Amino acid sequence: MPIIECIPNVSEGRRADVVERFAEAIRSAPGARLLDYSSDPSHNRSVFTLVGDAAGVKAATLALFAQALAAIDLRTHRGEHPRLGAVDVVPFVPIEGVTMEECVALAKDVGAEVAGRFNVPVFLYEDASNNPLRKNLEDIRRGEFEGLAARMTAPEWAPDFGPAVPHPSGGASVIGARMPLIAYNINLNTDRLDVAKKIAAAIRQSSGGLRYVKAAGFMLEDRGVAQVSMNLTNYGKTPIFRVFEMVKREAERYGVSILESEIVGLAPAAALVSAAEFYLQIERFGPEQILENKLK
Amino acid sequence: MPIIECIPNVSEGRRADVVERFAEAIRSAPGARLLDYSSDPSHNRSVFTLVGDAAGVKAATLALFAQALAAIDLRTHRGEHPRLGAVDVVPFVPIEGVTMEECVALAKDVGAEVAGRFNVPVFLYEDASNNPLRKNLEDIRRGEFEGLAARMTAPEWAPDFGPAVPHPSGGASVIGARMPLIAYNINLNTDRLDVAKKIAAAIRQSSGGLRYVKAAGFMLEDRGVAQVSMNLTNYGKTPIFRVFEMVKREAERYGVSILESEIVGLAPAAALVSAAEFYLQIERFGPEQILENKLK
Repeated sequence: MPIIECIPNVSEGRRADVVERFAEAIRSAPGARLLDYSSDPSHNRSVFTLVGDAAGVKAATLALFAQALAAIDLRTHRGEHPRLGAVDVVPFVPIEGVTMEECVALAKDVGAEVAGRFNVPVFLYEDASNNPLRKNLEDIRRGEFEGLAARMTAPEWAPDFGPAVPHPSGGASVIGARMPLIAYNINLNTDRLDVAKKIAAAIRQSSGGLRYVKAAGFMLEDRGVAQVSMNLTNYGKTPIFRVFEMVKREAERYGVSILESEIVGLAPAAALVSAAEFYLQIERFGPEQILENKLK
Repeated sequence: MPIIECIPNVSEGRRADVVERFAEAIRSAPGARLLDYSSDPSHNRSVFTLVGDAAGVKAATLALFAQALAAIDLRTHRGEHPRLGAVDVVPFVPIEGVTMEECVALAKDVGAEVAGRFNVPVFLYEDASNNPLRKNLEDIRRGEFEGLAARMTAPEWAPDFGPAVPHPSGGASVIGARMPLIAYNINLNTDRLDVAKKIAAAIRQSSGGLRYVKAAGFMLEDRGVAQVSMNLTNYGKTPIFRVFEMVKREAERYGVSILESEIVGLAPAAALVSAAEFYLQIERFGPEQILENKLK
């Protein structure tokens, strides 16, 4: 039984009853299981995590679209988080017994169906897109819903599926396939925000660092602790231990040590096992030696 | 569905057809699954790994006893590995949804049944035994099958179940409950066996070291590499990273570094995840953040 994870981000995080209706739509789709969901009122946004086979996550995604398009009007929506659509982003992630290629095919299948059924323009992203302008979510979402109509007049911003104009209340949706993402923060033994920002710039892909790292420096005001906040977008190719060691080394330059690190939300066991292999210098080890894998 | 692991060690490792018959007996028990088995001809011994609920592993163990007692005669058995019985050792290990106390109860239940049905004396060991003389397998097995009859004349060596004399051809069996055991080796960047032996003595419980570590120094003759070979008997209380760091520090004293380490056979994911948490200084992390645990 293949397992695909799907993490739709929806532009509603304040009306609990509406969010609960979205959750119910996902739950009632056959072949899908809602693992988790949470809302952020200041972002006015909710994130759902569900798993299932291709048919199951497709059915759940379509059910969510129907509810979200009926309940959300972006013309009056306000929130801190950038967004392009009522159902803003839908990534499909290969977890077990399924390839990235199959998740790309699923993203295209769902994208075509969303466009056809709801008349919403769909942009493919990450591994589902061959267009270098449309790999990164940030690039696609620039200008947000408010700038979308103007932007879509340019030929290079024709959608992959659906009409060449935004849905009046639902905007556009970004659908794609990507590796599991790990939200990883390293807290520094300093209150110097500039140090966190310099380290973030050194390690992230966009300014010359590691390929699958997005990073920014923040200040945890209540604790007086500077933080390097990261998204690791491919833990297989840019492993967590290499990121940790690079942050540690860059911090040393400023006489700063690492206070602690944290994984926010979920991480695949393999991401942590590879760190154990690195630090314990374990050779000749394979996933078939993990007891839990034998029990499946 | 609770999962108990059971790893019977049987005194037959040369006649492949006989070993296959034992495997078949385990496979045909309802509620048990044979994960793995291997034979060592020089030890003349085979190790089976099976999982199931209490009823399943009990049925499989009893089926194995019936076959092994019919096929093995310890009076003519020769092999390098110390042994006391045809079915020499049977540990029950809590893996998931089951407590150590339930595995202890299972060991006693199976022990009583083996004694009653096959007239084999049974010694409980590890967590299933309250007798400090009978915690360690090595202590119980001292003198082997050949010395057993004489030893059992002493009142402190009356078995926990069954007759006060050995089974003529099947000896006695040691049955108990323990934590998952990790076979862990650290290879040193030296050919000095004395260094490996000194480090082993420093870190193992029996000579003053870490509580849940058994260790010995060996020489990998073909590679000219000295090895600290270990069994970690409770990875929760004596974690693998603490053992690694202690070996590393002790080796430094002799100007020796660690070449590599290896896990032989299976290890629970948690044993490796805890090492990642240590080295990456991860705080506020729990097993519920492991993606695979959410998918169960």
